[in-house]
Amino acid sequence: MKFNLLGLLILLTSFGTTSLAHAEEISVADHGVVPGQDATYPLLRLIQSVEGESNITLVFPKGTYKFLPDNALEQFRAVSNHDNSLKRMAFPLFGFNNITIDGGGSTFLFHGRISPVVIDGCHGATLKNFSIDWDKPFQSELTVVENDTEEDTFTVEVDRDRYPYSIKHGEVWFERDGWSDPFGSNIVFDPNTQSPIYNTKKYGVNYSKPVKVTAAGKNRIRFNARGRALPPVGSVLITYGVNPTSRLCPAIHIANSSDVRVENVTVYAAGGMALIAERTENVTLEKMVVTSTPDRLVATRADATHFVGCRGTVKLENCLFEHMLDDGINVHGAYVKVEEYLGENRFICAISHPQQWGLTFASPGDQVAILSRETVLPFHQTVVENVVVLNEERFVITVSDVPEELPTGPLSLENLTWYPDVVMKHNTIRQNRARGALITTKGKVLIDSNYFSSQMHGILIEGDNKKWYESGGVQDVTISNNVFDNIGFEGGAVYPLLASPLLTDEQRLGEGHFHRNVRFINNTIRSFNGLVAQTRSVRGLTISGNKLDFSSDYPANNEFPSIDLHYCDDVNIVDNTATGFDHEPVIAQSPDSTNVKIENNVGFRAPSG
Amino acid sequence: MKFNLLGLLILLTSFGTTSLAHAEEISVADHGVVPGQDATYPLLRLIQSVEGESNITLVFPKGTYKFLPDNALEQFRAVSNHDNSLKRMAFPLFGFNNITIDGGGSTFLFHGRISPVVIDGCHGATLKNFSIDWDKPFQSELTVVENDTEEDTFTVEVDRDRYPYSIKHGEVWFERDGWSDPFGSNIVFDPNTQSPIYNTKKYGVNYSKPVKVTAAGKNRIRFNARGRALPPVGSVLITYGVNPTSRLCPAIHIANSSDVRVENVTVYAAGGMALIAERTENVTLEKMVVTSTPDRLVATRADATHFVGCRGTVKLENCLFEHMLDDGINVHGAYVKVEEYLGENRFICAISHPQQWGLTFASPGDQVAILSRETVLPFHQTVVENVVVLNEERFVITVSDVPEELPTGPLSLENLTWYPDVVMKHNTIRQNRARGALITTKGKVLIDSNYFSSQMHGILIEGDNKKWYESGGVQDVTISNNVFDNIGFEGGAVYPLLASPLLTDEQRLGEGHFHRNVRFINNTIRSFNGLVAQTRSVRGLTISGNKLDFSSDYPANNEFPSIDLHYCDDVNIVDNTATGFDHEPVIAQSPDSTNVKIENNVGFRAPSG
Repeated sequence: MKFNLLGLLILLTSFGTTSLAHAEEISVADHGVVPGQDATYPLLRLIQSVEGESNITLVFPKGTYKFLPDNALEQFRAVSNHDNSLKRMAFPLFGFNNITIDGGGSTFLFHGRISPVVIDGCHGATLKNFSIDWDKPFQSELTVVENDTEEDTFTVEVDRDRYPYSIKHGEVWFERDGWSDPFGSNIVFDPNTQSPIYNTKKYGVNYSKPVKVTAAGKNRIRFNARGRALPPVGSVLITYGVNPTSRLCPAIHIANSSDVRVENVTVYAAGGMALIAERTENVTLEKMVVTSTPDRLVATRADATHFVGCRGTVKLENCLFEHMLDDGINVHGAYVKVEEYLGENRFICAISHPQQWGLTFASPGDQVAILSRETVLPFHQTVVENVVVLNEERFVITVSDVPEELPTGPLSLENLTWYPDVVMKHNTIRQNRARGALITTKGKVLIDSNYFSSQMHGILIEGDNKKWYESGGVQDVTISNNVFDNIGFEGGAVYPLLASPLLTDEQRLGEGHFHRNVRFINNTIRSFNGLVAQTRSVRGLTISGNKLDFSSDYPANNEFPSIDLHYCDDVNIVDNTATGFDHEPVIAQSPDSTNVKIENNVGFRAPSG
Repeated sequence: MKFNLLGLLILLTSFGTTSLAHAEEISVADHGVVPGQDATYPLLRLIQSVEGESNITLVFPKGTYKFLPDNALEQFRAVSNHDNSLKRMAFPLFGFNNITIDGGGSTFLFHGRISPVVIDGCHGATLKNFSIDWDKPFQSELTVVENDTEEDTFTVEVDRDRYPYSIKHGEVWFERDGWSDPFGSNIVFDPNTQSPIYNTKKYGVNYSKPVKVTAAGKNRIRFNARGRALPPVGSVLITYGVNPTSRLCPAIHIANSSDVRVENVTVYAAGGMALIAERTENVTLEKMVVTSTPDRLVATRADATHFVGCRGTVKLENCLFEHMLDDGINVHGAYVKVEEYLGENRFICAISHPQQWGLTFASPGDQVAILSRETVLPFHQTVVENVVVLNEERFVITVSDVPEELPTGPLSLENLTWYPDVVMKHNTIRQNRARGALITTKGKVLIDSNYFSSQMHGILIEGDNKKWYESGGVQDVTISNNVFDNIGFEGGAVYPLLASPLLTDEQRLGEGHFHRNVRFINNTIRSFNGLVAQTRSVRGLTISGNKLDFSSDYPANNEFPSIDLHYCDDVNIVDNTATGFDHEPVIAQSPDSTNVKIENNVGFRAPSG
């Protein structure tokens, strides 16, 4: 292939910064990065040697590469929804334009407390064709081998090679790679379903005070149930650390970047989430997989994916997320508290949740809303002029204008500029603790042709200024053509769709509606509990064309309304069908709902009013 | 007073960067910094508003100023011999040329975990005319009111207003400002001497496992002595936190700076040292005071002053350091471990002690020695070409050359460029736990006309590659005309002067001598134990003209040699006199000492050999 100079110039012009003429492929093998020995330092040298260059691809010949924390680059990093700390990083990708890591089908095996991939300040970054795993995961999986209702005890058996432990002063400590965890957060899994066991809450071991155990043979530990239900023989008790040291190591952390693509990457474990992205524009996940290895039940210790204060489009296609110990995806912003108005359009603000401390709430030019913290409804919109960060928790923000008189009640701020559109197509999220998807963004959302089977709500559209302080109210959400399979096997009023702000006792619904324009259409629901949707403070709600079929996989339950409306306006519930239920699922509405049309729903019981 | 232009130019030229013409005095009162309310944020605004300016003096009208951590600027900071962490700072003085804080006699009162003064990257900084104190100190002082030999218990009474506590699960927790400390490091003080009680070690409460206590009335706590001696009624048990959260807040931290002066500053408390300086050139302390307030026995939780890897001159004059829970002054460098030789003159090194992690060991241009870690003697000297910091613990250093063949044993590096001269005159260091002064520097040292009365050694010239990894062997030390008063009331072989490297069992004295040229002359020693000096591996030692007088303030003890030589060369022990002892103090020498002259010592028993 030949280029003349003019042709090359045209090529350079047309490709801009991603010019093929400048693309460089580097085999890591040429730089001392080889399977079977600690690859951390040679990889760091290689990465540092191409700092400032553009269009770099690092190619790994297929193999199992080992990464230890000893010689890893370290930085104090705040990671939203994780525990901030000095973090050692194996792939510290800072400030690149178009960097690609092509694993060539390799396994990247991590040891100890290390953050595998950190992408910060990059414009164009692609991760592809590798898997992330840890030598020792962040949980211990303990098989229940005996339970004794008279003694109120149960006994677990532990594979000590994989989950070494010792018992000191009557407490069990699990030895990790460089630290030990006491018995902490815990959940019971059913190995037959590879999921949290039905109604797992009732088995939870209370660890708010030290959990006393006794050695019960070489590899066995006996627990006193202390009044909780005894987990069945054969089930597996998972314990996964204690706050604030249990979310130190997300597998992939993306911040302050744009145009990030993760393709054909599998995450088998993480001391946190598989992927957490903050203040990043355009993230695409294609065939990303989060799952467990064959010898473990659990994948990541926290969510598969999580997006905080992003914009552009978050796109997930053809992904599989299963066996993680928290949500499949969560997209949100952050409500921050106003601590003090200093005058001159300046506020001292505090980031509300400790696991959001260190977050970049806003930068000059961003649009922010000022809200009542009581109704969580905005009353003024303005532009950020300056932000001075004081510490992890607090910052001083200057805005262009404030109302002549500020309300006397407590206030919050919400960043309106950094909300993404979301596209989710052909993904599977299943067999995990917690929700399938949490969606709180003001962008346009399409969730189409996915499969959900989660222990808690399938899709949660929340917005809370109470507990996690995840903003904001949605504007345009379409949930169509999905399968919701046995949603809610934690038991209780758990829905394929729950759309409702979460308010404290001091907060109240205001004059307006919090969420808008939610369409839940043409979905297929296999259900043991007959539940479809609960909604509150939504204006513009369509639930139509959905098929609800009875499933006998879990105990049947007709305790709660199938469709449950509270304080909604402009509602269409039409053309839904329910089949196979002994008791017809109920459609209910509160008296404060307005403009509600409920028509042509087959197999449902219509509201009495 | 009139200037013409020529005169102004001459003035500018002669004063250089400290030109009076540019000096600016700012009253903090004009910027919202006022007594009686949290001054932290207004002060921060003021400091940030003069960033980049030179010759600034911030003047405080006399008053008591309050500093809370809430709105303080925060940074992750490594502080040598402390615990690294995110630190909130009240006076963050970064990168100034000639900044002065003139407190005007004010009290700066801190609350919670905050670092009062941080000077980093400043050329010319003066602190003067203020005191630093905390609302709640970092220790609790518990008065022993009962002891019971039969029950093996003792009972303390606690002023709950000053030292609030609660007992949970049988353990006592002391409530600080934003956190709680369990019963941890502890020492018994004698309120009559305002010092650690004689032989305090025997009363130490073992806290390696949880210390169980019982409530014994409203303000009383009963301890089981568990075989340790019962502290006398009236003595005060001090508990001061646990590692690694007990050294988070030094009062004054100085790093990467030059020409720093602290004058007429008093430190009453600190969650660490009163002053720690790292990699700084020329530090002068004039009339600095570290002491306790009238209602407390203890001042700072750690050393009064500490200098790591400094150069130029460290000068202390007319200072008073008393009641701190660690040494009066410590001057040293750091031995770092060679982990791996990478070839091409590159070493991966590890900082040896966790409380030195984050230290700047060297920069390009520094001279370093390569040492055997067994003998702690250097075998090669070279120049640093590059340093890449990997993480808190490790860095990669490139030097200009290495020997053709490196020894196979373990190696260390020592920085030869960053050792200061030391001048100490007319200071008082007394009534503290631990040593008066630790001096390990290759610079010229003069310690003249000071008063020492410490629980452990008066002056310790150590150098250790074992425990704290404090380098290095001294070259030129004069200790003259000082008073050493009742040195060693911890009991045992504790000397006014101890000069000896500290070696592990695997280490050994090599061919050369570790220390050189130590002169201990014309000092006055009031002593209950008859001890003067123990020395080991010193070449060029003079002990002359010293007066040793018996003191009956503590139990007499003639168990150890008064002057005790081990493997020393070129020694003069002459013209010393001892008076008032029942048993003549002994001068002893090991067979491997050479060129030893012992003459005209009155009241001593000469060596038998």
